[in-house]
Amino acid sequence: MRSDSPRHPSGGSAINIRLSSFPPHPLEQLSLEEIHKARTIIRSVRSASCSIIYRNIALEEPAKAVMIPFLALEHAGKLTPKTEHPPRLARVLYDVVALDKSLDFCDSVVNLTTGKELEFEVVDKKFHSPLNADEIEIFPKVAIASSMFQDALAELNLPPNTHIVIDPWMYGGWENPEESSPRYMQGLVYARDPATNNPDSNHYAFPLPLIPVMDMKSRRIIRVDRLATGGTEDGLKYGTGPKDALAHCKAAEYIPELVEGGLRQDLKPLNVVQPFGPSFTVRDNSLVEWQKWRFRVGFNAREGATLHDIWYDGRSVLYRMSFSEMAVPYGDPRVPFHRKQAFDFGDGGAGRAANNLELGCDCLGLIKYFDGYMNDTSGSGIITKNVICMHEEDDGILWKHTNYRTGRAVVTRNRKLIIQFIITLANYEYIFAYHFDQAGGITIETRATGIVSTVPIDPGKTSPWGNVVNPGVLAQNHQHLFNVRIDPAIDGYNNAVIQEESHPVAFDPEINPYGNAFEVRQTLLKTSCGINAAPEKGRQFKIVNTGVKNPISGRPVGYKLVPSPTQLVLAHPDSIMAKRVAYANHHIWVTKYRDGEFWASGRFTNQSSAECGGVKDAADRQENIENEDIVACGNTPDPH
Amino acid sequence: MRSDSPRHPSGGSAINIRLSSFPPHPLEQLSLEEIHKARTIIRSVRSASCSIIYRNIALEEPAKAVMIPFLALEHAGKLTPKTEHPPRLARVLYDVVALDKSLDFCDSVVNLTTGKELEFEVVDKKFHSPLNADEIEIFPKVAIASSMFQDALAELNLPPNTHIVIDPWMYGGWENPEESSPRYMQGLVYARDPATNNPDSNHYAFPLPLIPVMDMKSRRIIRVDRLATGGTEDGLKYGTGPKDALAHCKAAEYIPELVEGGLRQDLKPLNVVQPFGPSFTVRDNSLVEWQKWRFRVGFNAREGATLHDIWYDGRSVLYRMSFSEMAVPYGDPRVPFHRKQAFDFGDGGAGRAANNLELGCDCLGLIKYFDGYMNDTSGSGIITKNVICMHEEDDGILWKHTNYRTGRAVVTRNRKLIIQFIITLANYEYIFAYHFDQAGGITIETRATGIVSTVPIDPGKTSPWGNVVNPGVLAQNHQHLFNVRIDPAIDGYNNAVIQEESHPVAFDPEINPYGNAFEVRQTLLKTSCGINAAPEKGRQFKIVNTGVKNPISGRPVGYKLVPSPTQLVLAHPDSIMAKRVAYANHHIWVTKYRDGEFWASGRFTNQSSAECGGVKDAADRQENIENEDIVACGNTPDPH
Repeated sequence: MRSDSPRHPSGGSAINIRLSSFPPHPLEQLSLEEIHKARTIIRSVRSASCSIIYRNIALEEPAKAVMIPFLALEHAGKLTPKTEHPPRLARVLYDVVALDKSLDFCDSVVNLTTGKELEFEVVDKKFHSPLNADEIEIFPKVAIASSMFQDALAELNLPPNTHIVIDPWMYGGWENPEESSPRYMQGLVYARDPATNNPDSNHYAFPLPLIPVMDMKSRRIIRVDRLATGGTEDGLKYGTGPKDALAHCKAAEYIPELVEGGLRQDLKPLNVVQPFGPSFTVRDNSLVEWQKWRFRVGFNAREGATLHDIWYDGRSVLYRMSFSEMAVPYGDPRVPFHRKQAFDFGDGGAGRAANNLELGCDCLGLIKYFDGYMNDTSGSGIITKNVICMHEEDDGILWKHTNYRTGRAVVTRNRKLIIQFIITLANYEYIFAYHFDQAGGITIETRATGIVSTVPIDPGKTSPWGNVVNPGVLAQNHQHLFNVRIDPAIDGYNNAVIQEESHPVAFDPEINPYGNAFEVRQTLLKTSCGINAAPEKGRQFKIVNTGVKNPISGRPVGYKLVPSPTQLVLAHPDSIMAKRVAYANHHIWVTKYRDGEFWASGRFTNQSSAECGGVKDAADRQENIENEDIVACGNTPDPH
Repeated sequence: MRSDSPRHPSGGSAINIRLSSFPPHPLEQLSLEEIHKARTIIRSVRSASCSIIYRNIALEEPAKAVMIPFLALEHAGKLTPKTEHPPRLARVLYDVVALDKSLDFCDSVVNLTTGKELEFEVVDKKFHSPLNADEIEIFPKVAIASSMFQDALAELNLPPNTHIVIDPWMYGGWENPEESSPRYMQGLVYARDPATNNPDSNHYAFPLPLIPVMDMKSRRIIRVDRLATGGTEDGLKYGTGPKDALAHCKAAEYIPELVEGGLRQDLKPLNVVQPFGPSFTVRDNSLVEWQKWRFRVGFNAREGATLHDIWYDGRSVLYRMSFSEMAVPYGDPRVPFHRKQAFDFGDGGAGRAANNLELGCDCLGLIKYFDGYMNDTSGSGIITKNVICMHEEDDGILWKHTNYRTGRAVVTRNRKLIIQFIITLANYEYIFAYHFDQAGGITIETRATGIVSTVPIDPGKTSPWGNVVNPGVLAQNHQHLFNVRIDPAIDGYNNAVIQEESHPVAFDPEINPYGNAFEVRQTLLKTSCGINAAPEKGRQFKIVNTGVKNPISGRPVGYKLVPSPTQLVLAHPDSIMAKRVAYANHHIWVTKYRDGEFWASGRFTNQSSAECGGVKDAADRQENIENEDIVACGNTPDPH
């Protein structure tokens, strides 16, 4: 049922082998059948009188204690069709709606083999489930149908028949942490360029000064916020807006047929040709082998592509690697813009927003796509095609040396293997990729592309809160706060982290007579913590296995962990935003492993008032991290 | 006489057009004829009784005041064969050796049209000219022939007929700045693996504990320093070394036929094919046009590839861009290792060390090579083939957006143009490249590859001053301190630099009620200075033209300048090393332009005791840099 053949305009050889005599690998995504089975189990254990809205049905990864012996057998080549597998479990997030319309957000774990529910929790009312596709779809319809919203639109003097486009947004952080919050959504409102009325024209060039707010339980627009459209010229006051809200706006198009002057025609083709196929193989839809690497590819609605059980040259490197969160706080303080706070993994789900890459990953060379298995609100399984792409790339010179005496040059090209997914979040696209190289290195890539989120500004004004990017269009200042979760397993599951710095050394007639010495200072981290990058000290972090020494250097084997010395969260420490994104107070965190603790900002982020169960909470447990099963979370650069 | 056709295994169309009716462009390298003419002029004006050793004969670029009107005519399309060109000048560095063997290091500028000498200077004795090829070649011969060195070798109990290999080095900083220094060189000594005796075997795995020192005037070995080979185990004392210096060493080979187990065979071909040729054109051997870019490529013995008169989309961007210096101080304080201080541009010359890239740039796709025109010690011109390569590369997604409502995805690939040169400095290779993209961006690449510089360490010991990388082989701690010189001309020759930071904002019921605001704080730099990166403040630098406003944003047009927040020089501030590499005390420097002021560490670095005429000296002039002709020097990452 899954599509295994690589697709590429120039064709390509089959690179999948399915060992159908084996049950699914414990880390493989749920199949459609398994998703349906999970639904059946939940339906059977909940009251028949309630209705159920399924939010997420996904593989519950086996406990690490269960996986370790299984993986040991697997790597020893001792798995047989008869080997006992960890039970296949599913975690199901769902709303139970009672006859009286009261709603419980529930979280269950079910055993797909036995049909039993293993865990059941009615989630505390202070938490909200992530937004789902139905809510994103329904929001604009409800808004457009709302007379309150139509009345507000009427104030704007739009040209007749202007087509309104709404970007539904999460409601940001709940401002009163003490009270439980109703489930809300808000929407940024735009017009389609009346001159073309093309459904693919860029509505971000035509922002309107309204934000409707919807109560998700009643499905009604409860409020339409009027936006400040003033600038520095108003002394930071709100401004009144022009009489005709769109009169000063101008198109700024990206689809080729609307681009003014057309696209450049003077770039000649550059083709990547792999006449003998790719250098990787894929088995079981998830097991990738390339050069000396071997790992499994997973996928889920929240994290997108996850990588598991990563080995190099017959040695264990990582147990799991994933993108944990991306928070995007906006710095415009004018109410209600303070609610532009996105936690795109926790509030909605990166996997759920993943592009079908066959329609536009546009990678060169031979591409292997992986599908995602998710569910709709009825609990039906959905195959989301081609949500991950994998390909090889040439990345210049890996190594070169010329013996200047003989003139002999030896050059090795740098071939990389890239596993990528791309998500669309209304205006923005984010590119996430894992790069593997031939020298045992892994690089994490996070990039932003697409279109900046825009709001209106009065004609001719400028703002301290952003840049004017088109007439009447303000792109507000914001941050991108990424967090990558690395669960190391360097030559085994017990690892440690060494912080290393370089320091000048004082003059000393014995030790440092000419003052050129510098000292490399190492500190082994003892207790779970968050730490900052410090490039001025040459600070580096090494995840090591202190029990395994490099036979040449005599030092513990390890991987350098390179966080990005970006600016940390700018919101005031006492603000709701800063409390929600506690992980962005440090560049890396080292904590003790716990099953299921995957998310930098905690289990549920939608409309949260603070991190709950994220990396800061894990660090605050003050656990031993020296030669333990540890997790390292770190940031990547802000792409702006 | 110059080779203009692109070379590539798969062929390629002619991409050069020579407008032979025009004289050479004022920024084009000297031709062989011009080099010879420069020699003739110098020979004619110096005493017939002296002999002359020519160190460097190169184009003296016209003064900027002369170039500006010429370039204005050129960009206006008003150059004709009759346009008066700035005179072609050559700068000649040479030694004048009198009959009594006394030697003057001289610096002249000659007019190649009139045959006149325009400037003549006998350089102060405290400065030394850069090393030249003859000196590099003669050093090992003199050392091997020296009985002092042979006596030292005899102490090492080497196997009979061991082939000795010596890496000649500059002598580092002169330790007594008050006295004028004799011209010295030193050499790191290695053995060729006796087991294979292959001239291309890796001698860096067989270091010997000797450094011979040669007086370059008498051409005699005056001293052989014995090296410390101890480790931490000796309480930082020097150690005595093993009885047999090589007994514990083991081969570590890189040439394919010697690599243990052979090379990997499981990587399938990945070919870049450009069936319609490259997208660039090259005229006059130096004028490159690609996409909306237009610039000239220069080359000289010190800086390697230089770029000039860079325009984008009909607008001026930079007047000149070059690599200014790379200093590599080593952190091992044990005498004489404190003299491992390389200033590879000033002490020897990056251009002089440039590889013939046809033999190993190994770029994919269609490659255009440029030749370098330099001279030998007799003053004869030499064509150094293929010292610069230029090619296009695909670098992933430049921009993507998907309209999630319609599913329509628009993707633009990121095509780049790369101008690269690679230098070999004994053990190390350095890759220098300028990347141009389709969005008006320029990226500077500096990379290190090759083999680390090694010295011996007793078997089984470790060291605080480096890492043991092979048995008995210590790679000492060091820094790579790069400096890139950017001479901006953003929409004109008068520019300014704005420092921008982001700061949190206090809670305020009016301005910042929810604490999410952040302030973007801009400071226009007034006076020449050095500044540090400060990623914790989101510090950025913008080179702007305050007289030209972006019509949309209302802000000055400009380019962001992104230095790398690396560790600055680690040597003690009072050390000779730190004084020589003053530029590495800041990440960027902004100074007022002066003709001929190209070098971060000053005009002459070889055996210097301090920067003289470098960027710190320029900054110390405390000149106005607001809306002036300015220069910005900045660092690139340390590749380790």
